[in-house]
Amino acid sequence: MLTTAKPLFAAGTPLAARIALALAAIALTGVSAPAWSETHQFQMTIEEGEKEIAPGFSAKVWAYNGQVPGPLIRVEEGDTVEVELTNMTTLAHTIHWHGTYQTGTWRNDGVPDVTQQAVQPGDSFTYKFVADKPGSLWYHCHVNVPEHVGLRGMWGPMIVDPKEPVAIENEVTKEAILMFSGWNEDVAQTFGKGGHPTEKLSYFSINGQSFPNTQPLRVKEGDVLRLRLYATGIETAFHLHGHDMLVTHKDGLPLDSPFWADVVDINQGERYDVIVRMDNPGRWIAHDHIEHHVSNNGKVPGGAVMIVEYDSIEDDDWYVWKDKSYDPNFYYTQSLAEGSGLFNHKGFEVRKIENDKSSDRGRSRGRSQSN
Amino acid sequence: MLTTAKPLFAAGTPLAARIALALAAIALTGVSAPAWSETHQFQMTIEEGEKEIAPGFSAKVWAYNGQVPGPLIRVEEGDTVEVELTNMTTLAHTIHWHGTYQTGTWRNDGVPDVTQQAVQPGDSFTYKFVADKPGSLWYHCHVNVPEHVGLRGMWGPMIVDPKEPVAIENEVTKEAILMFSGWNEDVAQTFGKGGHPTEKLSYFSINGQSFPNTQPLRVKEGDVLRLRLYATGIETAFHLHGHDMLVTHKDGLPLDSPFWADVVDINQGERYDVIVRMDNPGRWIAHDHIEHHVSNNGKVPGGAVMIVEYDSIEDDDWYVWKDKSYDPNFYYTQSLAEGSGLFNHKGFEVRKIENDKSSDRGRSRGRSQSN
Amino acid sequence: MLTTAKPLFAAGTPLAARIALALAAIALTGVSAPAWSETHQFQMTIEEGEKEIAPGFSAKVWAYNGQVPGPLIRVEEGDTVEVELTNMTTLAHTIHWHGTYQTGTWRNDGVPDVTQQAVQPGDSFTYKFVADKPGSLWYHCHVNVPEHVGLRGMWGPMIVDPKEPVAIENEVTKEAILMFSGWNEDVAQTFGKGGHPTEKLSYFSINGQSFPNTQPLRVKEGDVLRLRLYATGIETAFHLHGHDMLVTHKDGLPLDSPFWADVVDINQGERYDVIVRMDNPGRWIAHDHIEHHVSNNGKVPGGAVMIVEYDSIEDDDWYVWKDKSYDPNFYYTQSLAEGSGLFNHKGFEVRKIENDKSSDRGRSRGRSQSN
Repeated sequence: MLTTAKPLFAAGTPLAARIALALAAIALTGVSAPAWSETHQFQMTIEEGEKEIAPGFSAKVWAYNGQVPGPLIRVEEGDTVEVELTNMTTLAHTIHWHGTYQTGTWRNDGVPDVTQQAVQPGDSFTYKFVADKPGSLWYHCHVNVPEHVGLRGMWGPMIVDPKEPVAIENEVTKEAILMFSGWNEDVAQTFGKGGHPTEKLSYFSINGQSFPNTQPLRVKEGDVLRLRLYATGIETAFHLHGHDMLVTHKDGLPLDSPFWADVVDINQGERYDVIVRMDNPGRWIAHDHIEHHVSNNGKVPGGAVMIVEYDSIEDDDWYVWKDKSYDPNFYYTQSLAEGSGLFNHKGFEVRKIENDKSSDRGRSRGRSQSN
Repeated sequence: MLTTAKPLFAAGTPLAARIALALAAIALTGVSAPAWSETHQFQMTIEEGEKEIAPGFSAKVWAYNGQVPGPLIRVEEGDTVEVELTNMTTLAHTIHWHGTYQTGTWRNDGVPDVTQQAVQPGDSFTYKFVADKPGSLWYHCHVNVPEHVGLRGMWGPMIVDPKEPVAIENEVTKEAILMFSGWNEDVAQTFGKGGHPTEKLSYFSINGQSFPNTQPLRVKEGDVLRLRLYATGIETAFHLHGHDMLVTHKDGLPLDSPFWADVVDINQGERYDVIVRMDNPGRWIAHDHIEHHVSNNGKVPGGAVMIVEYDSIEDDDWYVWKDKSYDPNFYYTQSLAEGSGLFNHKGFEVRKIENDKSSDRGRSRGRSQSN
Repeated sequence: MLTTAKPLFAAGTPLAARIALALAAIALTGVSAPAWSETHQFQMTIEEGEKEIAPGFSAKVWAYNGQVPGPLIRVEEGDTVEVELTNMTTLAHTIHWHGTYQTGTWRNDGVPDVTQQAVQPGDSFTYKFVADKPGSLWYHCHVNVPEHVGLRGMWGPMIVDPKEPVAIENEVTKEAILMFSGWNEDVAQTFGKGGHPTEKLSYFSINGQSFPNTQPLRVKEGDVLRLRLYATGIETAFHLHGHDMLVTHKDGLPLDSPFWADVVDINQGERYDVIVRMDNPGRWIAHDHIEHHVSNNGKVPGGAVMIVEYDSIEDDDWYVWKDKSYDPNFYYTQSLAEGSGLFNHKGFEVRKIENDKSSDRGRSRGRSQSN
């Protein structure tokens, strides 16, 4: 039977009853953390920096913990999360925890002038909430979203492991996080510009990098691969060659009726989890199928493109990534194998820009403690 | 069991049989109104006007009954609807009843040069049809759609209550209609301009208003809220904070497999109904997650943004809508509690522009009579 | 029960088990063609040409077999397909077989510098693979996709009939293929230009034609119509008037939970199959509901618009297509009634542009032979 924390529908139950049950279940969700949960205390900064997105193109960013994407936060459903945020930039920011219910803690939702006043330059703010929704969540700034989220890299993944995963989740042997976003060359170098509705994006990226700056996703035959797909700053139509994807989760929660796809359409803010049995050795490109998203300012190949490499396939002389320098944690695959915590990744670090709000506190690995 | 007028699938029936049944059921749909149905006679105008969309930005519109959105039409499945339309503008128009099958009445479908000749300035045309499809439908002009629907506010909601709703519909305690559209400042003041495929929209709205001109949706703990989401003139990725939405209906009909979402992707013309248990008191922003849709010509905050306010939460001094003037019918919530009829709303009225086709007949409340 | 070649879920099976079964089933898919399959040998060219898309607007194209859309390829699941491609243009190209698993044949996937080196002007390349995925597939060039696929018409349909169709597929009496794409007037006349992410499309088409150059889809009452909808070069929100569509397949495979729609949202690369019972005689427009997609460079009516005509309805004097010249194979409806093979269509031929790579081999009908 279905075993999500927020039960959906029991198989075989008539539709009307299933829905009634599902809604009733929401009412049972409690606010307080149960006895077996943990409390995680993390420190996060926002830092001004610059990041190379594609060969010859860099953008100024506001970087959570000095990196784009921001650090991976991974906890278990029911855990308490406490994040002390310090704004080391010259403009105001917040963190919105997208997907989290914030049950009983709405003032931690991160929306300026609605749930809190924005965190001013040099100031700190502590968010505290129970991770009461499982699945593929994310966090991002909620100040001036068209620029801060759309163009400045202010986003990162938060994974909340469900107490009772659906069976297929337990079969997964390898995980990867893919966050899709875009960039505007015209305003890339000027903080406080961009995000205008008539602007056009010129670069498109996965985890902040445009092809060929992206990375291979290396697999072996027999892997059961879970991709957590995030449309953070652009709509994407993700296409994986050579395999169908079973779409199992939307916005963190399991679908009652999973479906097969070779292209997954994801609009901004949505997340889809897909599970793929890696049973077809080869070199397989995977990319946004929106045609304007696969070039670097009009130069092909480029954009939101990556390659899935089976370990049994040898490189050809003409293979575009024959001499590629490999970062095995580019999709947070290594971090995702390590359980709960906050995970920075050196490969995502940006070049710091000093300002009078910068301090020497830098980034620090979060501390977890038992409750 | 499922009890829509056009039966979908009986739970537990094998897929193939369900589909066969579903298609067979279509053939049973009759054209004539059954004995217990009503006939509704409504009068509608199209009037030239101007409407403030955002602070400092107004657009010229063609307004059904002098308002944007157009009046709410609410009838029961099987009722006969008769609308006498009078075109008081200086260009030709029609009404297309989006979603209605128009079984046996295709000449009432409102498509110029295909089902009828367009209604010329000063002329009238009477549409008559049976409301044979239930759910969240809408109406809009079908002449020069890129301008008339895309930029001039020629759309309004039509709700047809199903004879046999699914169970969860009966639990709903509060309803709201949200229609998403966009505006182009460059051509806003010139009738007959705009709608070009290379144009870019600069304002984005819910029910014709951009934040902060939108309104709060006020709820109390325990409400079961049904949102009827319409992508009338823009694609939208609707995100509600603090709650998951159960997506129950698409394009008016119940889904066999409802799903949870925190972002609902809706392309132009589509409608999704979502049901939300209001169990998490707070102030929760709700907005289009397409980043370019949350500013007013580049100025933030703005765009397709609203706030859900629980009545138990007191305003903070810094709350952006602390002194907001409240219109309780902005989402047609009050009208939706009143049963069948045609409902104008004073809050949606536009400033009239006189022309030689204007008359003194003005807008009139529709009359309903028993069949 | 469900009878697809790649079994999805048995009805009534708990979700977890269904998913496990589904994934396990993938592992059973073999590479070798079974004894009862056929081998099809086809020859295809790529030719430089020019095509009228809308009245007064032509675009330079690279045309598979000298036509846009490319020829229909129709085979049965398990058949072997062998295509000898000859590039008669002045730039490099490939064919990617979108959706095909290419199990054991990844070097036939058509991605330049990843699975093969691009096919140079004047050169040939033979693709050979087993059609191991059923359903509505397609093929397109994978070199410089933003221009070649986005603007130059390098796409065509491939239908693989499943060994064990779902029941409703057997009820279908009429089929049609609709491929949606866009065009940019600014670069239409210059090979090697266009596809830049900031470019805006000005023309929108179905099967390479913009209204009124599109064609009626003629039906009779009682037809069970299957539309195979392809978003090849633009996102589309396909709306059919007067009927609901049952969405039965996504990306070639049957949905476990089909759903009703009057607007089908399809992002680039996706395919949806819908089945419609033609039970409502009339003249019904069908079109992309994205408002910017229904004009020809801003002139209305135009764009991705067609009309479904019931044979029992007589033309009115004012009907826009009263004197329309009729092409009964514009939606490949005639070809789709002919079984396996490669089907060129004279109505899709483009005006040839001679260059030094052109030869007299021209296009040839593919040959099929028993295995």
